[in-house]
Amino acid sequence: MGEIAFYMDQFVGINDKVVPIQERGHQFGDGIYEVIRVYGGQPFLLEEHLDRLEKSAEALSLVMPYSREKLRDIILEGLKRSEIKDAEIYLQITRGIGARQHHYPEVSAVFSLTVRQAKNIDETKRMEGIKVMLTEDIRWSLCYIKSLNLLPNVMAKQEAISSGNDEAVFIKNGIVTEGSSSNLFVVKDGELYTHPATNGILHGITRAKVMELAKKVGFNVREEQFDEEFLLNGDEAFITGTSTEVLPIRFIGDKELSKERPIVDRLVGEYQRLYKN
Amino acid sequence: MGEIAFYMDQFVGINDKVVPIQERGHQFGDGIYEVIRVYGGQPFLLEEHLDRLEKSAEALSLVMPYSREKLRDIILEGLKRSEIKDAEIYLQITRGIGARQHHYPEVSAVFSLTVRQAKNIDETKRMEGIKVMLTEDIRWSLCYIKSLNLLPNVMAKQEAISSGNDEAVFIKNGIVTEGSSSNLFVVKDGELYTHPATNGILHGITRAKVMELAKKVGFNVREEQFDEEFLLNGDEAFITGTSTEVLPIRFIGDKELSKERPIVDRLVGEYQRLYKN
Repeated sequence: MGEIAFYMDQFVGINDKVVPIQERGHQFGDGIYEVIRVYGGQPFLLEEHLDRLEKSAEALSLVMPYSREKLRDIILEGLKRSEIKDAEIYLQITRGIGARQHHYPEVSAVFSLTVRQAKNIDETKRMEGIKVMLTEDIRWSLCYIKSLNLLPNVMAKQEAISSGNDEAVFIKNGIVTEGSSSNLFVVKDGELYTHPATNGILHGITRAKVMELAKKVGFNVREEQFDEEFLLNGDEAFITGTSTEVLPIRFIGDKELSKERPIVDRLVGEYQRLYKN
Repeated sequence: MGEIAFYMDQFVGINDKVVPIQERGHQFGDGIYEVIRVYGGQPFLLEEHLDRLEKSAEALSLVMPYSREKLRDIILEGLKRSEIKDAEIYLQITRGIGARQHHYPEVSAVFSLTVRQAKNIDETKRMEGIKVMLTEDIRWSLCYIKSLNLLPNVMAKQEAISSGNDEAVFIKNGIVTEGSSSNLFVVKDGELYTHPATNGILHGITRAKVMELAKKVGFNVREEQFDEEFLLNGDEAFITGTSTEVLPIRFIGDKELSKERPIVDRLVGEYQRLYKN
């Protein structure tokens, strides 16, 4: 079958024109989203993603258009129809459709979904490590909400890609926060450091899972703020994300980190073991 | 004929489903917009709005999908087809349509337009003045770009409306910046004060026009930063915007400003004279 989508109350083709211009997503970015990875036909950490979706909705006073059960049914039905085994599920809820005005119209929220073939990370990158650049974190102050207002993330990622990097890492008032579409960890003296789960970063599901795994295998994890200097002097560093999983960093700007990455390599393996059986 | 829209390369019904899910506007708010007021069939300050649209596009490395002449033709044709004399033209350019990824896809930008009946401001409000509330400015740092990432504006406006106010005024690090969908002026000792046109505020076209008019009729205008205290102690205060024009403020939170507003009243009249003949 292949890639498929869902909008409002029905399954549609992924390129079908289904959204009117006066949709709050289209005109205000007034909505939220999640990306879920599917391995071998099984959505990975689905409930965690649905939990976070509900939290984002609550933060924006968005009333979910469907019950959790119905949402899960649509996702699983879409996955089944697509027949894609290694898929990426994108789901989005916007405040709905209404004549343009800033304040919330009294309309129902709209759910949309796409099911696509997952973009697998080039395994050479996972072996060799990626290049990241540092850039100012110019985003708003509620980055824990997984909202559709992604322009600063998009601009930072473009800056990274167009300058030969793989990811842009944000610095806010001297503090390293996270990547444009990932969370960031540094390893120093056998301990893991990552920015605390404040309003200023996305509370990544892969981030939480990696912290859990790290503790389980005996590494100390410190959710603490750290600066650029600390990052550059890390023994190892990596990013996490739904699509990227655990991805080691080789270069931060001009600074080359060690090729020896015992802790990151361990975590890459531990994470993959969660879905490989 | 009535309300009408335009998407990509053709005129469509305002409620037609024309946008695919994987549109950069819909998934990232990756685009820009303008709102233009039409009085008696004549678009007001059209060239100024098209100038600003081009500046926003440049700031986001968005390549305009049409020449300025073609853009103007579409707008005027839409207005003609609508047969609406007092209209509000909304135009939007997004980066285009492409499989979801953060960095810019190599696709063409997409233009959309709606022409609707203008929402006229209740003239009682213009006589009596509006109520505004103060709220923290949690937006990103490039507010001069008229982008589709409007969630903080939408949230602030909703907070204002739901608490019986007409507008929310942003305070950033103690400094009054602007309204959620307007610029703000204070009058003190016969002089006008407004936040300078930095990256932190929208460079309002009505704001610039009002500054020009004020100077013409002999008032000094100071583009300077001021704090909440200064605003509350103003002799008069008002907001400006394409739809709101010049709108006096009566209440700032609990603080009531004077009912005597000689300077604001003068500017309301001067502004309206620009399009009334």
